Amino acid sequence: MPPQIPTEQKAMVIEKTGGPVIYKTIPVAKPGPDEVLVKIKYSGVCHTDLHAVNGDWPLPTKLPLVGGHEGAGIVVAKGDLATDIEIGDYAGVKWINGSCLACDFCQQSDEPLCSKALLSGYTVDGSFQQYCIAKAAHVARIPKSCDLESISPVLCAGITVYKGLKESGARPGQTVAIVGAGGGLGSLAQQYAKAMGLRTIGIDTGEDKRQLCKDFGADAFVDFKTSQNVVKDVQAATADGLGPHAVILVAVNEKPFQQAAEYVRPRGTVICIGLPAGAYLRAPVFESVIRMVTIKGSYVGNRKDSAEAIDFFARGLIKVPFKTVGLSELQKVYDLMHDGKITGRYVVDTSR
Amino acid sequence: MPPQIPTEQKAMVIEKTGGPVIYKTIPVAKPGPDEVLVKIKYSGVCHTDLHAVNGDWPLPTKLPLVGGHEGAGIVVAKGDLATDIEIGDYAGVKWINGSCLACDFCQQSDEPLCSKALLSGYTVDGSFQQYCIAKAAHVARIPKSCDLESISPVLCAGITVYKGLKESGARPGQTVAIVGAGGGLGSLAQQYAKAMGLRTIGIDTGEDKRQLCKDFGADAFVDFKTSQNVVKDVQAATADGLGPHAVILVAVNEKPFQQAAEYVRPRGTVICIGLPAGAYLRAPVFESVIRMVTIKGSYVGNRKDSAEAIDFFARGLIKVPFKTVGLSELQKVYDLMHDGKITGRYVVDTSR
Amino acid sequence: MPPQIPTEQKAMVIEKTGGPVIYKTIPVAKPGPDEVLVKIKYSGVCHTDLHAVNGDWPLPTKLPLVGGHEGAGIVVAKGDLATDIEIGDYAGVKWINGSCLACDFCQQSDEPLCSKALLSGYTVDGSFQQYCIAKAAHVARIPKSCDLESISPVLCAGITVYKGLKESGARPGQTVAIVGAGGGLGSLAQQYAKAMGLRTIGIDTGEDKRQLCKDFGADAFVDFKTSQNVVKDVQAATADGLGPHAVILVAVNEKPFQQAAEYVRPRGTVICIGLPAGAYLRAPVFESVIRMVTIKGSYVGNRKDSAEAIDFFARGLIKVPFKTVGLSELQKVYDLMHDGKITGRYVVDTSR
Amino acid sequence: MPPQIPTEQKAMVIEKTGGPVIYKTIPVAKPGPDEVLVKIKYSGVCHTDLHAVNGDWPLPTKLPLVGGHEGAGIVVAKGDLATDIEIGDYAGVKWINGSCLACDFCQQSDEPLCSKALLSGYTVDGSFQQYCIAKAAHVARIPKSCDLESISPVLCAGITVYKGLKESGARPGQTVAIVGAGGGLGSLAQQYAKAMGLRTIGIDTGEDKRQLCKDFGADAFVDFKTSQNVVKDVQAATADGLGPHAVILVAVNEKPFQQAAEYVRPRGTVICIGLPAGAYLRAPVFESVIRMVTIKGSYVGNRKDSAEAIDFFARGLIKVPFKTVGLSELQKVYDLMHDGKITGRYVVDTSR
Repeated sequence: MPPQIPTEQKAMVIEKTGGPVIYKTIPVAKPGPDEVLVKIKYSGVCHTDLHAVNGDWPLPTKLPLVGGHEGAGIVVAKGDLATDIEIGDYAGVKWINGSCLACDFCQQSDEPLCSKALLSGYTVDGSFQQYCIAKAAHVARIPKSCDLESISPVLCAGITVYKGLKESGARPGQTVAIVGAGGGLGSLAQQYAKAMGLRTIGIDTGEDKRQLCKDFGADAFVDFKTSQNVVKDVQAATADGLGPHAVILVAVNEKPFQQAAEYVRPRGTVICIGLPAGAYLRAPVFESVIRMVTIKGSYVGNRKDSAEAIDFFARGLIKVPFKTVGLSELQKVYDLMHDGKITGRYVVDTSR
Repeated sequence: MPPQIPTEQKAMVIEKTGGPVIYKTIPVAKPGPDEVLVKIKYSGVCHTDLHAVNGDWPLPTKLPLVGGHEGAGIVVAKGDLATDIEIGDYAGVKWINGSCLACDFCQQSDEPLCSKALLSGYTVDGSFQQYCIAKAAHVARIPKSCDLESISPVLCAGITVYKGLKESGARPGQTVAIVGAGGGLGSLAQQYAKAMGLRTIGIDTGEDKRQLCKDFGADAFVDFKTSQNVVKDVQAATADGLGPHAVILVAVNEKPFQQAAEYVRPRGTVICIGLPAGAYLRAPVFESVIRMVTIKGSYVGNRKDSAEAIDFFARGLIKVPFKTVGLSELQKVYDLMHDGKITGRYVVDTSR
Repeated sequence: MPPQIPTEQKAMVIEKTGGPVIYKTIPVAKPGPDEVLVKIKYSGVCHTDLHAVNGDWPLPTKLPLVGGHEGAGIVVAKGDLATDIEIGDYAGVKWINGSCLACDFCQQSDEPLCSKALLSGYTVDGSFQQYCIAKAAHVARIPKSCDLESISPVLCAGITVYKGLKESGARPGQTVAIVGAGGGLGSLAQQYAKAMGLRTIGIDTGEDKRQLCKDFGADAFVDFKTSQNVVKDVQAATADGLGPHAVILVAVNEKPFQQAAEYVRPRGTVICIGLPAGAYLRAPVFESVIRMVTIKGSYVGNRKDSAEAIDFFARGLIKVPFKTVGLSELQKVYDLMHDGKITGRYVVDTSR
Repeated sequence: MPPQIPTEQKAMVIEKTGGPVIYKTIPVAKPGPDEVLVKIKYSGVCHTDLHAVNGDWPLPTKLPLVGGHEGAGIVVAKGDLATDIEIGDYAGVKWINGSCLACDFCQQSDEPLCSKALLSGYTVDGSFQQYCIAKAAHVARIPKSCDLESISPVLCAGITVYKGLKESGARPGQTVAIVGAGGGLGSLAQQYAKAMGLRTIGIDTGEDKRQLCKDFGADAFVDFKTSQNVVKDVQAATADGLGPHAVILVAVNEKPFQQAAEYVRPRGTVICIGLPAGAYLRAPVFESVIRMVTIKGSYVGNRKDSAEAIDFFARGLIKVPFKTVGLSELQKVYDLMHDGKITGRYVVDTSR
């Protein structure tokens, strides 16, 4: 017997840029031929969601908008062309809701670069509602063995840091420095790095974060506030003193973007993931050339990256610290986020 | 009968930083067990040689110093361990005169990154003399079919742009934009790119350079001075309007370094080769991340790159426009270079 | 005004395995939501088409079947989801007619490995009819500047050899040996190799083929019938005598598959493309290990490879020698093919 | 004070092909300018050593010969050019004792492919003596924290399987099947695979080996003797039933070489390491092509691979089960090896 799908549902809606988000009743959409309808159980809350409310990124949002792009739930309806996913399957609504699957970028598995990509909770309605539409070819497949609540933050944060680690080209046994290691993205990056056989240097500040990094198995920790010389300390933390093979930047301010090119190993790669508003990459030409440094922007993962990142989680290798509140309390989460008071990840439960 | 080697020779010597270079008689050195002595016939003159005179790079030179690192000649003596090169072979003295061949970088064929690398005409005496020492494992092998005069500029300029093109990852059929396409390095870059099956967009200024680019088979030319919008024009010059797959920066000022990241194709690579003093790479974090742009410094080639670059020349695919003067006239070349009056390459003939 | 689409058309139909193919009138199909209807103008005839008639491959065909998978034509109708292709566009129906676009292989751009891939002229009706259905995401985009008659053989033969060359990993300046260089696939392989900056050694037999290879710019030719020692002769044909960096096998018998591993350069790659029925790869373990040889099967190209192969053709770099006959004469082409009497490619004109 | 170096020492010498090995007193050699003298403490015994005695490989040995290529010891003397290693350093004598460091293969870090490579215990005297010569650039650097006895088998067996895993291209999270998982090389391969973030399927036979694989964390075990269908069982042991991404062949008979191509995943890679005398790789052309399978020979590691493999050991991630006997008892080890009675690795102590 197919699941009963109501005609109306609860959602958090942004009616105008700047917010607030409003808890209200809206219609449930019907999937097109290449779409599925996912009954969202839980959704992680990402910094990007706050940017969508505030409209401070150089990319306009749909309005009115239902935000959210870390939605974990169950497929309850699907279009005729959605032949490789079944009603009852677990599924994840992620940032890339759909793409054309035919352009030059989609052809090379770079769906996030598709100029027609649909962005969940940004250019199309996302996961802060009880029933969400996603393209069948893009919706993440989640094994039944996974807990939907704890996997939800993996759907953006986890995939993104995993992608960054892949893009870095660092091989098992090599060392990556993670800037912002003690934050939400950083904690995930450390765990993925370890699961990939990498050694890690945590860069962050404070005793709590030092301890957190130690708990995650970091081989070294550099406190960027108390260090006399971050560049030297990071290099000294590698076995041969030549610096880490890669640097993963998940920090939210500009300075680390400019410093990483100095301590990364010759031939090393600096991966930029975080998106501090208005920030610039900056590196001296001379040293970058003679040390053959690579600086590389890494956006969200493609579908394959997503499947792999979920697989690491499913194998029990990734633990995400999170707190759960009701969907109706989303504005409070944004308020805390705005005030920089969040450590770890918030998840909303769409049932309340 | 072995060649007769004199005990004295003519050389151009830098006795103090700032110059001038002095034409004088100095002793001929004897090769160590792992070295060869090359009778230099011709040597190209590179911008780096002027930096060595002026000491304006953040890397000190040997003093007194014989400059030069594009030396083409004949092996006239060798040490006992130099078993894979023979007296009478053609050989090239290039920027990397020697390296440890044992460190982590040498082990991965990145000899230019060896911390013990010897730099011809900078940390060891170079090719502006009649007899020059080089490490046997590093000296470039030049086929006998090559003309030593015309190949000399390939030994630094040619190898360097070829390396940059390799590092860009651009594949046959893809498009590279070359910034500074009409200069000495740019002309070489265009020819190597064509020989590698790449399409090219020349970026430079003036009708002469436009014509030069056309002659080298450029698929398009963008005049950065007359263009209303360089970013749009470069992108429009590619078949699908999405921008070139790679950008090769051989320009000597800072602005192009900051502009290239904007017009390169998403997932594309910007290769920095030129070394404008004190310049900075700079790119907006947001766009670099969501477009997944790579910015990469490319230094000189390793030994394999060098052999390959020479091979393209030996096959007749690379023509270097140059003028030859006597070694004793080197200071005049520096004066012209200082005044920015050189187009193409100067070569010195060590016999006069 | 949309093109007028008839309800009936002419097609060559295989009604039972073993043939013959029958010229008859059949209905014109209607495209589904993710499909296009292509008015086929010309279609190349491939050896695979004969295998489809004879049913001698370990993969069953649809019955009754319209063969053909090198169909070039014009889009005349399309489904609602086909938003990135327009009525009037030139399009090519290739071997991979469609795939799921969602499985692990499709996610990594290996659509040819999709277990649900639809094969034109094999598991779905192909291009030996006047109106052919294809999945919009898979149908090849052909620039309007191309001649549909001469591009048709590129749609399988061209793409396949281009893919093989890409898979070989050979870089511009390196050497590939092409076994069967004088045949239809071989001629294309030589031209693609040259356009990619590669050097080529043609391996085939007879003066005609030697001349053909010379005309295509082969750097050397080895006649496998008159050579006293094919292995030595192929190695001697490379600059340093160490053998070609890659071998492309488009031959249709077994021996060359076993010989290539012996003359390929250490660290080199042998690419298998041709599909002689019942043949085996075979190579001695000891020599393959200590020489670090790679042997790799290369199937047809994915969509990106296809677009690139077409792009080389559109730039005028690839010439395909072919003869055109009417669609109704297809059986005669098969008879010639069966008797091994075809050199070059046959194309059928669907208008007669 | 420099170590006292005697003029004579004990060694196991092969005086004629076929053996036996004789325990006798021979002179201690003096290092050339680019060499070191290593006081060997322990040496692992490898199957290759038995081949050197028996002369049954298509590559002649030096005679008389001191075998051995897993020698761990201390540098006691060095030539003038050996500037990056010190008296007192721990060092390992491995299979590749030296290479020209200048040929095309050495230039691309493929020293094992150098045609002038010196092979320890095969073309030059090896580690079954108390004092052994090795080229300074090639001798393995061993951290002081390592135990020389237990690291010795890593110097060939460990490096070789690590190299094979690298060559396979398998990425963290993917699955490798190891054929011969319960043997000496197989046990090492399992541990390296785990340390590299890979999942493993052990293929071997018997309950002891099943248990051993389980202890090493294998995700699955297939008993090739009791399995009704090895191909199906190996594929079924992967999460999606499509087969392992790579297969590592360390078995010593021929059949597994022919079977692996059938169960490896489409696009997967079969790595051949083991060298069964006279064996052939064999795979059907049709299936290998349409599944795009790669079969690749992997020889010993280069210097970088060696350093990395040692680093994994130094970090405590690799445990080698071994038994130690006196150097003078080497013939007994060969006798056991000849009779197939060895599980795990034997190490000889040169002091007795």
